[in-house]
Amino acid sequence: MNIKITGFGYYAPPKIETAEYVSQKINKSIDWIISRTGVKERRVSEIDVDKMGALAAQEAIGESAPPDLIINASGVPKQTIPDTSVFIQRALGLKGIPSFSIHSTCLSFLTAFHNAASLIAANQYKKILIVSSDRGTIGRNFSEPESAALLGDASAAIILEPSVDSKMITYKMETWPEGAEFTQVKGGGTYRHPDNPKTIDRDHYFTMSGPQVYKMARKKVYFMIQQILKDNHLTIHDIDCIIPHQASDTAIKAYSKFGGFPEDKVVNIIGQYGNCVSASIPLALSIAIQNKKIKRGDLVLMIGTGAGLSVASTLFKF
Amino acid sequence: MNIKITGFGYYAPPKIETAEYVSQKINKSIDWIISRTGVKERRVSEIDVDKMGALAAQEAIGESAPPDLIINASGVPKQTIPDTSVFIQRALGLKGIPSFSIHSTCLSFLTAFHNAASLIAANQYKKILIVSSDRGTIGRNFSEPESAALLGDASAAIILEPSVDSKMITYKMETWPEGAEFTQVKGGGTYRHPDNPKTIDRDHYFTMSGPQVYKMARKKVYFMIQQILKDNHLTIHDIDCIIPHQASDTAIKAYSKFGGFPEDKVVNIIGQYGNCVSASIPLALSIAIQNKKIKRGDLVLMIGTGAGLSVASTLFKF
Repeated sequence: MNIKITGFGYYAPPKIETAEYVSQKINKSIDWIISRTGVKERRVSEIDVDKMGALAAQEAIGESAPPDLIINASGVPKQTIPDTSVFIQRALGLKGIPSFSIHSTCLSFLTAFHNAASLIAANQYKKILIVSSDRGTIGRNFSEPESAALLGDASAAIILEPSVDSKMITYKMETWPEGAEFTQVKGGGTYRHPDNPKTIDRDHYFTMSGPQVYKMARKKVYFMIQQILKDNHLTIHDIDCIIPHQASDTAIKAYSKFGGFPEDKVVNIIGQYGNCVSASIPLALSIAIQNKKIKRGDLVLMIGTGAGLSVASTLFKF
Repeated sequence: MNIKITGFGYYAPPKIETAEYVSQKINKSIDWIISRTGVKERRVSEIDVDKMGALAAQEAIGESAPPDLIINASGVPKQTIPDTSVFIQRALGLKGIPSFSIHSTCLSFLTAFHNAASLIAANQYKKILIVSSDRGTIGRNFSEPESAALLGDASAAIILEPSVDSKMITYKMETWPEGAEFTQVKGGGTYRHPDNPKTIDRDHYFTMSGPQVYKMARKKVYFMIQQILKDNHLTIHDIDCIIPHQASDTAIKAYSKFGGFPEDKVVNIIGQYGNCVSASIPLALSIAIQNKKIKRGDLVLMIGTGAGLSVASTLFKF
């Protein structure tokens, strides 16, 4: 599918919260945090997800014309109804542009990228804005130290347009519901509605069994990479840059330790930003483009896991 | 885009709640309810949205092979994370199939239909299951009589496959954020999180300014229909069946009263089922197919409005 990333932007909230600060909240040492998560510091947003998303989107749009479609691709919405894309459009001062949300938690950006590429390939739109914006720090449960030490806030956005030189080569996704309970926010829907007497405070916080996710994900991610390389007659050395979801430092390092990719090709920003849910992949992508780690013509592999448990990967020529 | 609806199914929960019952809860007469909403009775589900969706999906799949993609296209999720598609897949006893959610409230089904058609046209998938499942009765605020008298529970599903004879002709959508506050469930996300001292019980209920929605929607829907007919060199008489979102009896009747469509071509099921949020359009579609109101080769126009305020319409040859 001949598509090109013609704009990118991100918003990293100015307020920094260190591992030292979090260590007091979770009653663990700084070393414990660094060894388990790798998160030295994270950003904490004082504005809501729609405004965060609009700041990233504004940077991605720049001086160019408005998009003809807006996709919000975030993990947690601003509110149940309307979907967050409406509020992002409002914060951008735009109107009349079709907009909706795509949700697959930490993989929302990859899913939206695939849908957007297909919509462009099917000649339905010519300029699609994808925005991922998550404020995971709101959902932290400080009595669950590992996940509470992981999460950070950020937003990132890209513009996708038809192209003659750049292209999306392949997309693969698998969802394994046996892992549905490994990563959850149980509240916010019909299951643990506030009116339900079974609903407890904890239901509104993020909960994750990191070891179970890691154990299930590592193999599935490994096989998916092998499959993608094989299907496209490529080797590890043909890939110029890996943009993994910033799940944890261990998970990111597994791409070089077990996956065989040279460490300097794997974008790792978790130390500074933490796990920013859906925003992690486009944030890492935007920073890599900004720092010239990705150049036009490069083969880029975006890959990660999300609640579900889902595994997904996008291979594209930038 | 050459696609065909090759399967359909729906689940209408067995429990019926009458206008008489609701009239006591909202302290209004039965006549008041019928004249304002047209909803004589609605279904109330005792199982959650994932199981409701799976029942409809099972009927749509029938004895055929499993889909290669599952899209949940509902208004309100089961829980915040993972997205509801995971739980639908689990309830279907399937695994490994990519799945995600698309959300544009009452228009989620139309948005998902458009994305699915594009994914098939771009040769990404061959058999897509779209499921809309909503349990609006959980979110009723009985101190807001009109919206509380409207909502009902249902799910519906379709299978979309490549085709040589059937096709999706056009899709149009517009989102107007000036109407963002006309239809809301403020809770369930970062804005009115339970930890936020500003959050009140009411935030977890559905709220709608019916007259404002109707006023804004009527004109926009009218112009969209004119545009679609003009773009495709069609007249009102070429359309064999209209499947409107079941917003209210007044809104549905406007398609004949102001839109000029013969009343018998406009599918109206609101009297029996109420407004089932995202499930209304695919439920009306499934019932129309079942009752042979739609035959192969017919030109069908699905149309509606959703929180946002968004207006969308799909014209397809069944």
